[in-house]
Amino acid sequence: MADKKLVEAITSMEEDFAQWYTDVVKKAELCDYTSVKGCMVIKPAGYAIWELLQRQLDDRFKKAGVQNVYLPMFIPESLLQKEKDHVEGFAPEVAWVTHGGLQPLQERLCVRPTSETLFCDFYKNEVQSYRDLPKVYNQWCSVVRWEKETRPFLRSREFLWQEGHTAHATAEEAEERTIQMLNLYADFCEEVLAIPVVKGQKTDKEKFAGALATYTIESLMHDGKALQSGTSHNFGDGFARAFGIQFADKDNTLKYVHQTSWGMTTRMIGAIIMVHGDNSGLVLPPKVAPIQVAIIPIQQKKEGVLEKAFELRDRLSGSFRVKVDDTDKSPGFKFAEAEMRGFPLRLEIGPKDIEAGKCVLCRRDTREKIEVALEDVEAKVAELLETIHSDMLERARTHREEHTYIAKDMAEFEKIFTEKAGFVKAMWCGNQECEDLIKEKLSVTSRCMPFEQEKISDTCVCCGRPAQKMVYWGRAY
Amino acid sequence: MADKKLVEAITSMEEDFAQWYTDVVKKAELCDYTSVKGCMVIKPAGYAIWELLQRQLDDRFKKAGVQNVYLPMFIPESLLQKEKDHVEGFAPEVAWVTHGGLQPLQERLCVRPTSETLFCDFYKNEVQSYRDLPKVYNQWCSVVRWEKETRPFLRSREFLWQEGHTAHATAEEAEERTIQMLNLYADFCEEVLAIPVVKGQKTDKEKFAGALATYTIESLMHDGKALQSGTSHNFGDGFARAFGIQFADKDNTLKYVHQTSWGMTTRMIGAIIMVHGDNSGLVLPPKVAPIQVAIIPIQQKKEGVLEKAFELRDRLSGSFRVKVDDTDKSPGFKFAEAEMRGFPLRLEIGPKDIEAGKCVLCRRDTREKIEVALEDVEAKVAELLETIHSDMLERARTHREEHTYIAKDMAEFEKIFTEKAGFVKAMWCGNQECEDLIKEKLSVTSRCMPFEQEKISDTCVCCGRPAQKMVYWGRAY
Repeated sequence: MADKKLVEAITSMEEDFAQWYTDVVKKAELCDYTSVKGCMVIKPAGYAIWELLQRQLDDRFKKAGVQNVYLPMFIPESLLQKEKDHVEGFAPEVAWVTHGGLQPLQERLCVRPTSETLFCDFYKNEVQSYRDLPKVYNQWCSVVRWEKETRPFLRSREFLWQEGHTAHATAEEAEERTIQMLNLYADFCEEVLAIPVVKGQKTDKEKFAGALATYTIESLMHDGKALQSGTSHNFGDGFARAFGIQFADKDNTLKYVHQTSWGMTTRMIGAIIMVHGDNSGLVLPPKVAPIQVAIIPIQQKKEGVLEKAFELRDRLSGSFRVKVDDTDKSPGFKFAEAEMRGFPLRLEIGPKDIEAGKCVLCRRDTREKIEVALEDVEAKVAELLETIHSDMLERARTHREEHTYIAKDMAEFEKIFTEKAGFVKAMWCGNQECEDLIKEKLSVTSRCMPFEQEKISDTCVCCGRPAQKMVYWGRAY
Repeated sequence: MADKKLVEAITSMEEDFAQWYTDVVKKAELCDYTSVKGCMVIKPAGYAIWELLQRQLDDRFKKAGVQNVYLPMFIPESLLQKEKDHVEGFAPEVAWVTHGGLQPLQERLCVRPTSETLFCDFYKNEVQSYRDLPKVYNQWCSVVRWEKETRPFLRSREFLWQEGHTAHATAEEAEERTIQMLNLYADFCEEVLAIPVVKGQKTDKEKFAGALATYTIESLMHDGKALQSGTSHNFGDGFARAFGIQFADKDNTLKYVHQTSWGMTTRMIGAIIMVHGDNSGLVLPPKVAPIQVAIIPIQQKKEGVLEKAFELRDRLSGSFRVKVDDTDKSPGFKFAEAEMRGFPLRLEIGPKDIEAGKCVLCRRDTREKIEVALEDVEAKVAELLETIHSDMLERARTHREEHTYIAKDMAEFEKIFTEKAGFVKAMWCGNQECEDLIKEKLSVTSRCMPFEQEKISDTCVCCGRPAQKMVYWGRAY
């Protein structure tokens, strides 16, 4: 049914996954390049996804006691330098403001790559007593990292995100919050984006600059590459010591606070594309689909067809996001366009349907067509959107499981990454030299030490020494 | 009833309005200064107001056909310079990024002070045919203007706002959209923020850099100073010619688009403070109050009191934003704190109330106390919040009318601004020399040429030549 002209414009993902991705981003009008090198414009169809994602993630934050704030986008150089590991990690990739108006600045300012230092400077004044704790703040903003190679949504010099920053009286409470937010991200990915994730801890090599421990959720894209989808960091009292954030505890002694931070970004739109998309374009999880039901009238010039289409829209739009495509394009073109844009359900209604008192619902994910009596349409749409969500999650989980391999030695390891793509579970001795060697040889990085540990073998996949941890390895975006 | 310690900390507004403002901002914990000169942190109580304002303004945008997008925060210098008037207006007050990572940039980038140039660069590629028009896009973001003197919410080097940017096929449609958005802002101010505004056009001297016409809504603060509260600009085809934004019209000829832009900022939080606040602190309009009903238990340790307070919260929180203050502070302290933070209603409930099957509602705006039977509490809260909104709007309107004066000549004009403060309606010949002279002599600027014109006299208040327009004049923030 789909119109040839529109569909032929997409490269098939089996042929060239990277080009398929770029084609989808472009044809679904999610974002575009700009005159500003490495920066993109997020177009209405892309931004609407971000707004839905943001709204639902923020609702979950608020239920978890998070309060939103807004801190400046600029960080004075001296402030960035207060925590040694942190500045080493970020200084090479920040943008520097050196002039304000016509004057050179006395101290240059970097455009925030992340805001730990600003939050520390803020908390230093806000926190005096144990009564002022915990602080559980978050901000929605854009950040800048001067990347050399960029890709739409996945890596750009400026991107949108949220960054949560908390301060606690005890180490235990900080660790609890770190894990709580990681779990929140994981549930959000599965329940809202229909993306299954592996939860675990980053190795020291891969952890955040200045963190004691970094936890991550990792998802697997359709091409077998991994995507870090959200991270949660426990800083211990390292930043507090560097910035002097102390409070008078109940026992009247001065103590340093314990801090965490956690973030999720617009790259999740990239994850949605690469986990769910197919060769007809985008496939949107119903909960973040700006249009959940695209109503497409058939023979719309015939009497009563458009009226019925708008009547259905009015009935459905109390509970769902609905749009009627009443443009003068052909139905086939409209079908292809609705497929490209990934709307979960297409509702077809024509003169014959009206006569029979029914309409046709077509699932984007499976293309299954279901005839529905007009009086049942609300209930059926509600049911199908739920089914689509859980089927999408299940398919993504199956795909991940089918592309998760086991390696006991380097020969196996190398064979998998030569012939296949996916996650590899393998044991690790805990030494960075092995990580470095694996990266050098296979261009593979440790994704995480999963919370759910298994014993694949007794020895490190790389050096053969006694193993400490089972690690998920993969090629990553 | 209010606790002395908390209240004494505020300067009275009659004594020192500027200090009163600063005290309210600080004590109501809306925002604070930071280590980044001229930039502020918006704290949870302030940001929650912004979120409610943003949500309701955005809902109105969406009903008006506006689509949200996100464009980069950086503007290459060459792009900023394409429209002559625009660059002259903004270049002296932008922040310049000169280094990315460790490398100097080939072309320096300014941090957006506004995004007309970026939207033009975007539209140039997006708009080919009349079918691509209109474009009615908006973005929520922060912008930077390197101000020398700053004040919380009113003027800071970085502030949050929305900026709408549209492109149209005809001049008429662009003008219609400009006025439509101005009216939307005016309605929003009155219906959501309870702030009455004067709608009008800016003089050429005061219009936006690069605009054909700038329309504005002006509000009057409690101290008689004016605040520009939202602007809507019609650019004609000036930017389109500078950037080459052309489309093939129905008649197959290439035409330039006609453009508009319009914005509202976090300074509206300043307007809320200065229009509605009093000597006990903030007074929030119910529709943007993060807490609409503060429940304060009396003798909360007595059996059943806290239970009843939480029961009331659960009943009310389906329809309203409600919070129980069950801290161990005294009721008097809690009252003062709820007043300082401007919550529209306080609900007092103690053992005697429970026995009598009633509670007490106290209005923040009038301090009126109303006894309500417990079974009627939802209905009464709903009614009171509506009444509070319309009373606040009415009081602000009365204040403005009582502080709007008429001047027929410079002597009257000068006398008013020596003895009083407010809007002055006076005739103007249309020459900038008179505006300049009035500004020099009285530190007064033309706020707008109101849509509702009156004839105060036949001659210009300044030069005595024939008058063209009646103008609202004032001292402004």
